[in-house]
Amino acid sequence: MAKKIKLGILGGGGDSLIGVLHRVASAMHDQFEIVGGVFNPDIDKSIAFAEEIGLPTNRIYKDLDAFVAGEAKLSEDERIQVVSVLTPNFLHFPMAKKLVDNGFHVICEKPLTTSLEEAVILEEAVKKAKTVFAVTYTYTGYPIVRQMREMIQSGVIGEVHKVDIQYYQGWINPILHDKEVRETIWRLDPTKAGISSCIGDIGTHAFNMAEYLTGKEVKTILADLNTRYEDVQLDVDGTVLIRFSDYSKGVIRASQIATGEENGLTVKIYGSKGGFNWEQENPNFLYHLTDDKPVQILKPGHAYNGEVSLDGTKLPPGHPEGIFDSMGNIYYGVAKAIRGLDYDNGEFINVYDGVRGMKFIEKCVESHQSGNVWLDL
Amino acid sequence: MAKKIKLGILGGGGDSLIGVLHRVASAMHDQFEIVGGVFNPDIDKSIAFAEEIGLPTNRIYKDLDAFVAGEAKLSEDERIQVVSVLTPNFLHFPMAKKLVDNGFHVICEKPLTTSLEEAVILEEAVKKAKTVFAVTYTYTGYPIVRQMREMIQSGVIGEVHKVDIQYYQGWINPILHDKEVRETIWRLDPTKAGISSCIGDIGTHAFNMAEYLTGKEVKTILADLNTRYEDVQLDVDGTVLIRFSDYSKGVIRASQIATGEENGLTVKIYGSKGGFNWEQENPNFLYHLTDDKPVQILKPGHAYNGEVSLDGTKLPPGHPEGIFDSMGNIYYGVAKAIRGLDYDNGEFINVYDGVRGMKFIEKCVESHQSGNVWLDL
Amino acid sequence: MAKKIKLGILGGGGDSLIGVLHRVASAMHDQFEIVGGVFNPDIDKSIAFAEEIGLPTNRIYKDLDAFVAGEAKLSEDERIQVVSVLTPNFLHFPMAKKLVDNGFHVICEKPLTTSLEEAVILEEAVKKAKTVFAVTYTYTGYPIVRQMREMIQSGVIGEVHKVDIQYYQGWINPILHDKEVRETIWRLDPTKAGISSCIGDIGTHAFNMAEYLTGKEVKTILADLNTRYEDVQLDVDGTVLIRFSDYSKGVIRASQIATGEENGLTVKIYGSKGGFNWEQENPNFLYHLTDDKPVQILKPGHAYNGEVSLDGTKLPPGHPEGIFDSMGNIYYGVAKAIRGLDYDNGEFINVYDGVRGMKFIEKCVESHQSGNVWLDL
Amino acid sequence: MAKKIKLGILGGGGDSLIGVLHRVASAMHDQFEIVGGVFNPDIDKSIAFAEEIGLPTNRIYKDLDAFVAGEAKLSEDERIQVVSVLTPNFLHFPMAKKLVDNGFHVICEKPLTTSLEEAVILEEAVKKAKTVFAVTYTYTGYPIVRQMREMIQSGVIGEVHKVDIQYYQGWINPILHDKEVRETIWRLDPTKAGISSCIGDIGTHAFNMAEYLTGKEVKTILADLNTRYEDVQLDVDGTVLIRFSDYSKGVIRASQIATGEENGLTVKIYGSKGGFNWEQENPNFLYHLTDDKPVQILKPGHAYNGEVSLDGTKLPPGHPEGIFDSMGNIYYGVAKAIRGLDYDNGEFINVYDGVRGMKFIEKCVESHQSGNVWLDL
Repeated sequence: MAKKIKLGILGGGGDSLIGVLHRVASAMHDQFEIVGGVFNPDIDKSIAFAEEIGLPTNRIYKDLDAFVAGEAKLSEDERIQVVSVLTPNFLHFPMAKKLVDNGFHVICEKPLTTSLEEAVILEEAVKKAKTVFAVTYTYTGYPIVRQMREMIQSGVIGEVHKVDIQYYQGWINPILHDKEVRETIWRLDPTKAGISSCIGDIGTHAFNMAEYLTGKEVKTILADLNTRYEDVQLDVDGTVLIRFSDYSKGVIRASQIATGEENGLTVKIYGSKGGFNWEQENPNFLYHLTDDKPVQILKPGHAYNGEVSLDGTKLPPGHPEGIFDSMGNIYYGVAKAIRGLDYDNGEFINVYDGVRGMKFIEKCVESHQSGNVWLDL
Repeated sequence: MAKKIKLGILGGGGDSLIGVLHRVASAMHDQFEIVGGVFNPDIDKSIAFAEEIGLPTNRIYKDLDAFVAGEAKLSEDERIQVVSVLTPNFLHFPMAKKLVDNGFHVICEKPLTTSLEEAVILEEAVKKAKTVFAVTYTYTGYPIVRQMREMIQSGVIGEVHKVDIQYYQGWINPILHDKEVRETIWRLDPTKAGISSCIGDIGTHAFNMAEYLTGKEVKTILADLNTRYEDVQLDVDGTVLIRFSDYSKGVIRASQIATGEENGLTVKIYGSKGGFNWEQENPNFLYHLTDDKPVQILKPGHAYNGEVSLDGTKLPPGHPEGIFDSMGNIYYGVAKAIRGLDYDNGEFINVYDGVRGMKFIEKCVESHQSGNVWLDL
Repeated sequence: MAKKIKLGILGGGGDSLIGVLHRVASAMHDQFEIVGGVFNPDIDKSIAFAEEIGLPTNRIYKDLDAFVAGEAKLSEDERIQVVSVLTPNFLHFPMAKKLVDNGFHVICEKPLTTSLEEAVILEEAVKKAKTVFAVTYTYTGYPIVRQMREMIQSGVIGEVHKVDIQYYQGWINPILHDKEVRETIWRLDPTKAGISSCIGDIGTHAFNMAEYLTGKEVKTILADLNTRYEDVQLDVDGTVLIRFSDYSKGVIRASQIATGEENGLTVKIYGSKGGFNWEQENPNFLYHLTDDKPVQILKPGHAYNGEVSLDGTKLPPGHPEGIFDSMGNIYYGVAKAIRGLDYDNGEFINVYDGVRGMKFIEKCVESHQSGNVWLDL
Repeated sequence: MAKKIKLGILGGGGDSLIGVLHRVASAMHDQFEIVGGVFNPDIDKSIAFAEEIGLPTNRIYKDLDAFVAGEAKLSEDERIQVVSVLTPNFLHFPMAKKLVDNGFHVICEKPLTTSLEEAVILEEAVKKAKTVFAVTYTYTGYPIVRQMREMIQSGVIGEVHKVDIQYYQGWINPILHDKEVRETIWRLDPTKAGISSCIGDIGTHAFNMAEYLTGKEVKTILADLNTRYEDVQLDVDGTVLIRFSDYSKGVIRASQIATGEENGLTVKIYGSKGGFNWEQENPNFLYHLTDDKPVQILKPGHAYNGEVSLDGTKLPPGHPEGIFDSMGNIYYGVAKAIRGLDYDNGEFINVYDGVRGMKFIEKCVESHQSGNVWLDL
């Protein structure tokens, strides 16, 4: 008998979009039951929100300290097992650290922390606590992305020699060109957003995808960033040359000023025997290229797909999966890990890869500020 | 304070795909709480399934009679308000009827019933009981489909003169060409599937979409069906000429032998001032055509979208919505109706349109068998 | 040594678009040399046009009689061998007939004639004269269409059971809804356009494509046409049910009021082992579907393509072919036939298929006017 | 009266693909007449080829010296006016130089020369001779590319801040991974191919497109190239960071090892008010993006297109244009220039831009060899 895993949530109240995404994702495979948390720093708002979404309010706490203390009093059978951290970025580290230190499994929104230093500390804490720790790089949950990963890592396209990942958005464009308006954007304020806007928010997704899919680590990077205006302190666009080796190279392209683009994460990976093209906005179509045969379009739910891909597909072919399904599969992987079941490394991004992401951000900014030089990763 | 609506489920246990779809859909807008039902005719299996998906088992009943009796004993505050009917097609009518007669709101999988006669009886019952009754024509829930509907009905493409809806699948092809195999397909057995396979299962979706989007009723139809083999008793393919009037015509094309097609529901609607193209397998892209301007691609979540469309979009543009989101929006519409809130006719398909669907099936079969003649609808 | 074939042209002068298309097509494979003709009924305009396009004017004739008489005086070595007939539709028959009777090969624009009766007479004339006679169904010249034909006819998709050809345009829409304007459209005037507008102009292309690709003849048809307004005498839209046999059926859909559509000829053909999708506006991508493998995208110029397809591709893969290349391949096929070389039936549409096209038009109109009944073809 | 322009051709004989392309292109607008040239260094083969393609052989010369001397003897009215140079790359410079010095207009295949030094000499010669000189960057001839150029340069997308041009091919992949095979590839032999393979052949197309479309000059570049194997001397892949200014940046990505890609030239250009996406393999669809309106798809031949775009479109919308049409438009632009007619700078690439292309290649190689440093262009 598989009782639902008890899930707590930090943040994600009010009209938070990320809150909806995580709540639905947790429901998708009948694995989790939301039982409490801290939705808002204001306890009244937190309780009101719990009522709004139909949750009992008895385990809504005023803050994380109260949460930890309160849950500690419950029997192991009752206690929250895993906590989703959906708070503003600067709170990811202290909250996740405290949760890990107190034995909770954690599902943490990205970025993992606001600095590499914090990330490394957190990684150590997880190693020590031996808890399950997932960083929600949402796009890795698409079944067909997992299919691509499996095919690449099993050698279908031979030795990878070219990796090109794009993440183009345009959302900052309409509010960037008026100086007074742009001074109000928190993403461009180093005190709130950290050292990077574009690379930190989306370049890191692209970087993670590169390593996730190939199973290889980027060795060195060289970044050229763009602030668009002299008075803007953080990057809104950037191109990063990457090298896996002297003969396996690539590029990561990210932008928040790709005017009119919505959420343009795309993957192009080529090896000695084949290649793949994939676009996040059409997430159920994977193009497999070879030298001499027709291009093949792989879709989810077919017998030709691998186990991890199929495990994340709930309906027959032709029933489109979306971003909620993708996040749902990440939650499903976490559930398997918590239950001690077999699961594949590809089912969620762990704290080690979260650290890699932080390192990537810091090195990109350093490379750019040092005159676009190569730095080891 | 918005308490969750208490939802019961009939059917959908075991590895039922439709069960997953409805459970997740009910969770998508934080509106429903599943509290009981009958997942399986075998009470032990029903309870086991409840445990598997982490539900309390105290309101799992042995059958619908027990369900109705059991819930009647509870206070109004505790009682299940709405029931999803996910059982085999022949049970839709008796179960839905009983539920309506006992004052429950109902969310019924399509087809509504197995005959027009039953459907009409059910419609009368709903009118009398004044309950909310939804038939889950899933594809009407996509935000961009709702956008298309709103634009058509507000006159953006002028007077509609051409409607062309396709629903092509290929699933029956691999099991059709071997006589021994095809004799085992329940969909082709009139005693189990009713009078039609292809038109009944998917042609009716296409028909519903035609009336849903245009807001007009098809006046007459002429159908040519294909059984592919002489010994097959039900249609696996069909083309239906439709007329809204003498000068507004169209065609519905459905197939289960469109080899290699997955779930190819497509819409082409043209009027005096413009047209629309949409494909279910790429559900977030709506093509708006006009005589003299560039084709426009509408996507969900933008300020240019209407209220009903936006209400069904949970994340910013570029985060693909899938079939679960579509069904989730239908549940959301039902929730609004149950709560007595304002809602649009487009938010779910009601019993009246369910009856239309049954009528369409019966008339198509009659037209074909009568030598492909025009029949009023 | 392959001297160029001497080509004459009737019509196509001034700013005629079809004139450009045929001139360029004739140049594409270095097979033809334009040496004279009648570009315009006014000899002065005809000569002026010859000068404009840089042709010598000594073999520009005042009319077809003069053309035939003038060429007869030349040595066989000098004489025009083949004539392209690009005049208004009603002149196709008398001109083509005279040319054939005088031993010229003919490349005739479609429609072949303005009535089935004329078409049959012409067919007899060609049989007697044993000349080469091509009707320019332009879209059959695309290399990837020829690839599809070859694969279908060699059994790659098994026995064909479903054929769905669409030809949607919207050009008549902007000039149709004002009564005074529509009364000026020659296409809607039976004295100029014959018995049909939409089916006659583009439905016939779709019909030809159906027979061209499958190599089968349509046995019976049932047509429902739409004039859009009571005062319009010819069809601007129509759907035609077709049957190759009792178990192999399909539909032809044509429209001139598919608002905003440009030249939307599309093909969907399904058989027991596979299917094909193709769209004329993206003419270099052929989608090959099967029951259980990824969809394949075939493109021109690859080693996996057949001989007839490759023979029509002039550049390596990825260099898009357009409508001129398509027509160029038809001219190339005619050149092979004139030179007595081996060529495939698929390289151009002959007079027999031109007659089929005329029969299709007449039967569609008759079916519609008789109350949408089945008629043999 | 517009007599045809007399065109000579150097190279392009035998089964040369580029020969076909130029011959057809010259015929597309009825502007040119091929009257002679040197198709092959072997005069017998040259004459045989002339006969094969149906040309008179009296002006087929044994070499360029004979060509120049022979044409000089003819009256101005008879003399060849413009010469297409289709010979191997190392002959472009000496031949084009001699032609320009002798007063011929020139249409030169790219690359203009094999070194920047030669290119500059040629530019000087053209300035002195005041002849028309076109370098055939083929892809600039597509009508919808010209439309994009016009819209960008007239400010439709505001100030350009991001330019991303890709040119991915995979042709070298199947012959690269076997050492013995790759040693036979002339493109990888510096004595035959010059200093670069990938950047020289296709990177330069991408670079030209960036400057052609924006009307701006790239100020500095930083290149990272990849030879894939240590023993390969020339690049088969490369990424080039580009800067138009400190706040207007971009990237050029080129590859010959993008396995399975055919001819993947793509354009993404973004400015303060909008953006454009275009793909060469679907050359008739231009995507125009803005912050808040639906994406628009522009296609050729519509009233909304500009003059230069429309002038290059020969048929109504929906009749696909291909690579031959694109090259045909370049020839058409050259014809206008030779005839002294008004023409737009966008109608063909001149010698100045050819020099820019050579500079780009040299600087990319230098940047890479110097450790990926920024170099002025």
